[in-house]
Amino acid sequence: MTPIEEGIGKAGVLVEALPYIQKFAGKTVVIKYGGHAMVDPVLKESVMLDILLLHSVGIRPVLVHGGGPEINAMLKKVGIESQFVQGLRVTDAQTMEIAQMVLVGKLNTEMVSMLNSFGGKSVGLSGKDAQLLLATKKPLQMPNSDGTMEEIDLGLVGEIQTVTPGILNTLLEQGYIPVVSPVASGEKGETFNVNADTAAGKIAEALKADKMLLLTDVRGILRDVSDPASLLSTINRDEVDNLIEQGVLKGGMLPKVECALSALEQGVGSVHILDGRIRHAILLELFTDGGIGTMFV
Amino acid sequence: MTPIEEGIGKAGVLVEALPYIQKFAGKTVVIKYGGHAMVDPVLKESVMLDILLLHSVGIRPVLVHGGGPEINAMLKKVGIESQFVQGLRVTDAQTMEIAQMVLVGKLNTEMVSMLNSFGGKSVGLSGKDAQLLLATKKPLQMPNSDGTMEEIDLGLVGEIQTVTPGILNTLLEQGYIPVVSPVASGEKGETFNVNADTAAGKIAEALKADKMLLLTDVRGILRDVSDPASLLSTINRDEVDNLIEQGVLKGGMLPKVECALSALEQGVGSVHILDGRIRHAILLELFTDGGIGTMFV
Amino acid sequence: MTPIEEGIGKAGVLVEALPYIQKFAGKTVVIKYGGHAMVDPVLKESVMLDILLLHSVGIRPVLVHGGGPEINAMLKKVGIESQFVQGLRVTDAQTMEIAQMVLVGKLNTEMVSMLNSFGGKSVGLSGKDAQLLLATKKPLQMPNSDGTMEEIDLGLVGEIQTVTPGILNTLLEQGYIPVVSPVASGEKGETFNVNADTAAGKIAEALKADKMLLLTDVRGILRDVSDPASLLSTINRDEVDNLIEQGVLKGGMLPKVECALSALEQGVGSVHILDGRIRHAILLELFTDGGIGTMFV
Amino acid sequence: MTPIEEGIGKAGVLVEALPYIQKFAGKTVVIKYGGHAMVDPVLKESVMLDILLLHSVGIRPVLVHGGGPEINAMLKKVGIESQFVQGLRVTDAQTMEIAQMVLVGKLNTEMVSMLNSFGGKSVGLSGKDAQLLLATKKPLQMPNSDGTMEEIDLGLVGEIQTVTPGILNTLLEQGYIPVVSPVASGEKGETFNVNADTAAGKIAEALKADKMLLLTDVRGILRDVSDPASLLSTINRDEVDNLIEQGVLKGGMLPKVECALSALEQGVGSVHILDGRIRHAILLELFTDGGIGTMFV
Amino acid sequence: MTPIEEGIGKAGVLVEALPYIQKFAGKTVVIKYGGHAMVDPVLKESVMLDILLLHSVGIRPVLVHGGGPEINAMLKKVGIESQFVQGLRVTDAQTMEIAQMVLVGKLNTEMVSMLNSFGGKSVGLSGKDAQLLLATKKPLQMPNSDGTMEEIDLGLVGEIQTVTPGILNTLLEQGYIPVVSPVASGEKGETFNVNADTAAGKIAEALKADKMLLLTDVRGILRDVSDPASLLSTINRDEVDNLIEQGVLKGGMLPKVECALSALEQGVGSVHILDGRIRHAILLELFTDGGIGTMFV
Amino acid sequence: MTPIEEGIGKAGVLVEALPYIQKFAGKTVVIKYGGHAMVDPVLKESVMLDILLLHSVGIRPVLVHGGGPEINAMLKKVGIESQFVQGLRVTDAQTMEIAQMVLVGKLNTEMVSMLNSFGGKSVGLSGKDAQLLLATKKPLQMPNSDGTMEEIDLGLVGEIQTVTPGILNTLLEQGYIPVVSPVASGEKGETFNVNADTAAGKIAEALKADKMLLLTDVRGILRDVSDPASLLSTINRDEVDNLIEQGVLKGGMLPKVECALSALEQGVGSVHILDGRIRHAILLELFTDGGIGTMFV
Repeated sequence: MTPIEEGIGKAGVLVEALPYIQKFAGKTVVIKYGGHAMVDPVLKESVMLDILLLHSVGIRPVLVHGGGPEINAMLKKVGIESQFVQGLRVTDAQTMEIAQMVLVGKLNTEMVSMLNSFGGKSVGLSGKDAQLLLATKKPLQMPNSDGTMEEIDLGLVGEIQTVTPGILNTLLEQGYIPVVSPVASGEKGETFNVNADTAAGKIAEALKADKMLLLTDVRGILRDVSDPASLLSTINRDEVDNLIEQGVLKGGMLPKVECALSALEQGVGSVHILDGRIRHAILLELFTDGGIGTMFV
Repeated sequence: MTPIEEGIGKAGVLVEALPYIQKFAGKTVVIKYGGHAMVDPVLKESVMLDILLLHSVGIRPVLVHGGGPEINAMLKKVGIESQFVQGLRVTDAQTMEIAQMVLVGKLNTEMVSMLNSFGGKSVGLSGKDAQLLLATKKPLQMPNSDGTMEEIDLGLVGEIQTVTPGILNTLLEQGYIPVVSPVASGEKGETFNVNADTAAGKIAEALKADKMLLLTDVRGILRDVSDPASLLSTINRDEVDNLIEQGVLKGGMLPKVECALSALEQGVGSVHILDGRIRHAILLELFTDGGIGTMFV
Repeated sequence: MTPIEEGIGKAGVLVEALPYIQKFAGKTVVIKYGGHAMVDPVLKESVMLDILLLHSVGIRPVLVHGGGPEINAMLKKVGIESQFVQGLRVTDAQTMEIAQMVLVGKLNTEMVSMLNSFGGKSVGLSGKDAQLLLATKKPLQMPNSDGTMEEIDLGLVGEIQTVTPGILNTLLEQGYIPVVSPVASGEKGETFNVNADTAAGKIAEALKADKMLLLTDVRGILRDVSDPASLLSTINRDEVDNLIEQGVLKGGMLPKVECALSALEQGVGSVHILDGRIRHAILLELFTDGGIGTMFV
Repeated sequence: MTPIEEGIGKAGVLVEALPYIQKFAGKTVVIKYGGHAMVDPVLKESVMLDILLLHSVGIRPVLVHGGGPEINAMLKKVGIESQFVQGLRVTDAQTMEIAQMVLVGKLNTEMVSMLNSFGGKSVGLSGKDAQLLLATKKPLQMPNSDGTMEEIDLGLVGEIQTVTPGILNTLLEQGYIPVVSPVASGEKGETFNVNADTAAGKIAEALKADKMLLLTDVRGILRDVSDPASLLSTINRDEVDNLIEQGVLKGGMLPKVECALSALEQGVGSVHILDGRIRHAILLELFTDGGIGTMFV
Repeated sequence: MTPIEEGIGKAGVLVEALPYIQKFAGKTVVIKYGGHAMVDPVLKESVMLDILLLHSVGIRPVLVHGGGPEINAMLKKVGIESQFVQGLRVTDAQTMEIAQMVLVGKLNTEMVSMLNSFGGKSVGLSGKDAQLLLATKKPLQMPNSDGTMEEIDLGLVGEIQTVTPGILNTLLEQGYIPVVSPVASGEKGETFNVNADTAAGKIAEALKADKMLLLTDVRGILRDVSDPASLLSTINRDEVDNLIEQGVLKGGMLPKVECALSALEQGVGSVHILDGRIRHAILLELFTDGGIGTMFV
Repeated sequence: MTPIEEGIGKAGVLVEALPYIQKFAGKTVVIKYGGHAMVDPVLKESVMLDILLLHSVGIRPVLVHGGGPEINAMLKKVGIESQFVQGLRVTDAQTMEIAQMVLVGKLNTEMVSMLNSFGGKSVGLSGKDAQLLLATKKPLQMPNSDGTMEEIDLGLVGEIQTVTPGILNTLLEQGYIPVVSPVASGEKGETFNVNADTAAGKIAEALKADKMLLLTDVRGILRDVSDPASLLSTINRDEVDNLIEQGVLKGGMLPKVECALSALEQGVGSVHILDGRIRHAILLELFTDGGIGTMFV
């Protein structure tokens, strides 16, 4: 194959993408990024390049990131031990400070830096910037041994109450790619830790986003967890309810699924759960016919 | 190769194009389109798709077309015979009317239609719209047998005097792809036939375009016409002058070369002569490192 | 009369027009132009001047033109014979090509050129530009000799389905006068011939025009066709229905009348049928109290 | 003549005005209005209609008015006697208060009211609004009987130092017709009486107006004051100097002529002195070939 | 106290005002100004400074002024005696002319001048500018001695029918402070005297103002007129009705109270009656917790 | 003193500030904030309130912060020891990571949070956001014991090369208060620690700020360091050079003074060094006549 023939082949690939590019031009896409894809440097680069490509063809991406393992490592380094209740970290002021430093001062800044070094224009935000995310303390009740309910104090774990998307719109209109850390303000200026999936969902709702993509460490929703071929390419609320009843959907997938359905109901165009462990997962979902994950409808 | 692996490969091709896309985003590119590429339906489609891809990644393309063979066919059909002087068609009113009908009412409309049916937003213009091209009668002198010079009347062959690019800017700002026919107005509303290469060059100058591409039926500028491997990837005025002296550059290439150099001098960022017979020639020139034709510097 | 006295008289005429100018400033007026007024050079110039005057006093005119006789002449010149069914030309691809060349490449360009040479800023459009007019094949059924209905194939005769007025608004906002040819796109990029009166009506609807003027070869709606004094200066749907029942309205007037009533119902402010054979018919209708034709209310 | 024939005639007059309308569209024209034209109700109405017509064809008129006789009448009514030095009224605080009430609270408001009742959108301003006109006390020296120079105190007679045209631009851009009274602010908020011709000239300069018209009670500049036929349709500085030397230009014409030449030098496109006693003088000047007064070049 | 300590104290006062400033930023506040505050030069200066301070912290103030005593003085000076019916001045043309001269040409201009000399950007308007206030003749019927009703002719006393707030919005958006005189246009351009409280109320309604302040010569609404401590800080319609029944509210307060309630019902955010005799009454009302007058709710 | 009298007193203070507010409205002020004022919670609150007050009266503040002691504390907590060369911390990757986490993820976020909880709209940025600050490695040479110069490797200590102020302008135009951490990007995406005074100066230059305030732990420039009364309220380059020669200016003041002079030369309107230990230092400098620190001229 001569270089020109090779070039013609590649040009053909670009032109194949044209209908997808035209379809999504001007659309707002919120991407929740976490898990394996955030730890593996090859995947991380591939996610950043995908986002830059979306941006360069006229899509308005918003990146919301998680950050579990790095927070744990830092807490360990400074000698703070965490207690967990129902999978939620009890978050005292010291823990919150470390979590915020890692999320905002390390992970977010690194992504912004990588996007910009690849030619992008990216700006990092926490939920405290411009009052983007306002939260209140998350209530939690657990049964005592005597059957009565006890109020559990999770400390600075928050539930998002309001999203003020003005700053996101300002940045998107000026061509910036916003990267958002899941940290929220309380009414008196206190800091709350919030779930990143939920933050992505609420932001997508407030922006009336056309699409939300949740990058996870699973293939999507599988009818049979042990069989990758049982991937459901689309799913609706009834089917979700069935799978929950059957015990197929459980554990960490439940909040993701709930957040997906809630976003849909609040006007987000479509929500997808994808496998962030696949390179270029975002482009594969948006720019191929079937997509690679599960779309909520 | 599984479909996902194939998809990852294609996504990789898209991401490879990212630096070029970022480099040209927001730039204005004037494309002169004529010759073989306009007659062969496969090439025609490939040119239109290339232009749509440019547009979809934020480039502002302007298409200027030629139209020789179709005009000849129509003139023949209605029984008009043309006389040529020094390669220029002597253009009486009847001929001009047919030429304009073919250029504006057939070729231009067909391209607009094709661009739009592929998902674009295109608008056709002649140089008479919004006074885009104003011309005066082209003077031509030829030596008589006795050595004195004789003024030759070429009829409605015009020389462009002024370009009023307002309508092009209006359309480009609103996201339309303008397609321009090489027909100009005279001061009293008369119609002039103008050279399409020159029209493209003058329009590129008036728009302060970042790039002009001339699609031709040759590989570019060859140091040795018989050897395609002698293609010059860049050339400057001095080298052009040398090649003219050596008789390498001659005939139909002379006006193209002149128009390229003039555009450069008037502030167009760069001018390229490419081989329109190669599929996706435009993408190959803009989105590969070396390009495929000759760039004037 | 001294020159100053004459000047004062003329200034008085200008000032008399002031209330009309104030009334229509900023209004959008769609003008269907065809028939005699298009063939007679004196009338043609008078129509163009009227339109320029409207434009210069702040009105936003859109010109939609017809073109029957010129198309016939050209078809004849290239030796194509047309078949007519119920007054509609059966339009094969060759015929459509000629019709489009005449409409877009000759008549439209001539008008644009004339408007511009009188100091205007005009741009020509076909319905294919920016997907202005989208059409589907016009169905037609005729009774067979045995009373059953037969589907007649009219070829590329189209019915307008959608008007996308974006390009018209862009041009009007920038002070251009759009001139539109009655040619439409099909969904796959094919070309359709559409009725110019209907095109004007649909465009007026899509622009929510304040006024539509149909220039015809009759005085307006006459209660008694043989008596010009029986001109109705206004008419409503009921009166139209009566006149149709009585056989007063028939033939070529029927589609005009239908298009007028439909435009009114779709929100066009008012619709007028005027006699295009009267010089300055447009100014007379807009700038005198009674007007000269029939207004649909 | 039938009504339609009459209408056609009038339409012809409108169309005759087209080239002038096109020529002046978007231009700013400052009109100084005073003298006879302000006292005679027929002329006053004709001036207002002329201004409205200019406005309706896209011209941006600014009206600056004088007001001598009405101020005198009011001063007389309240029993204030004025002293004059070299044609300038010595203006004490009481006199200034009356002058301002008449100019701003009577004459200006009346004109605004008349323009609005004829369908316009007019706003009255004094030079104190938005610091439009800032003045300092006008110095005046006169020779004593012993030949020494004596400083004369003219009271609140001002010389314009600065024009802040922001408010005029705001109003013009929103389509309002500003009417300005010749009253200025001092630095400490005091009130100064300023010459209306000068105010018009300074405003025209600050607006970089295309034209200034001074409506006066003479035909223009006459080479022989006793012969109206000796009207100069154009004049330049040298010719002015000659006429002053010859004693042809003198008295009240001197400041007008000086103000005209100064405005020209400061970038106003052209300045005209016209006879405000002729009905529709403004339209005659702008919309006929020769004009009726004298143009400074 | 050292100068720095004194400065820190003052800075503390500024910072104390911050929550109020933030609360009212961008809000439109209509202020009716009349009575004692307009006659006493110290109070006048304090009102102007208050308005400038509001403006400098981002509030959009509109000042509507009254003017009784000055009009009386001028009428006396020119020898016009007025007749009053039910507290309304019978206004003939001569009286109207004097009233307008005083309101527009003296009082309004003086306030504009004062605001500008303190560093503001203010523009004076009468209700005739840009058709701001359109009025019709106020009807009045009085019982005859025989019990029948007689129509009383009040001359040019008007009732406001329409407010066209365009000019106010234009000025406010450009950062000007409008000062409005209570003079209105009739349909035929005639002049009407209108009540200044009502004018302020109608203007507040048309602007959908956030607040209207009526500066009066009383402390607010007192439950017991003889006891300043009985000031009601808020009042609603029912309470107003009770106070009227009890005869506590009567005379000149009735129209003010009516205008306040009407403005509230038409969408003005809140209406306050304050004591204009207190220095900085406006700042005290807006920038202290309780305010100093009565707020209608 | 009654509450009303007290209120009048406070209103008087507000009105006293009016001329300063008018003078600075719309101006851009860059504030470098560090040292004692950042550690003492009372001073911190006073700085934030001052900034919010500036913002509320139309000034555009940009806050650039330092952060030494907190970085030290965190480094100590995670057991990293730093080496210093000529007062500069040798910064390895680990140290940089901690520094960035503290600056961006703790200090910056805390200030943004405090500004927002007091009613502001603030957004935090690092120099890596939108490529705000681009730096290269800071070169440092030190003499060896043998007198030759040795290149010292300071690690990730950077020198600012380019400021891209786009994101600051975007935020300021939308009414946000930007807070900037002194962290910069290298060309390949690496992170550099930069001096906060210099960052403030370069940002002020790039914004063409009207004013830069450096909050320090000294009274300003003192002629005699031991005598606070020897404070220079203004100083120019020559005087600075003298004080350096005399050894009065030395140590940590030198870079501040250099940065002040450089900013002035690059077009910043004025630069002030103030004592951040005084409450409301910013308001005292801007809103009192003499100011409290030293102004560079």
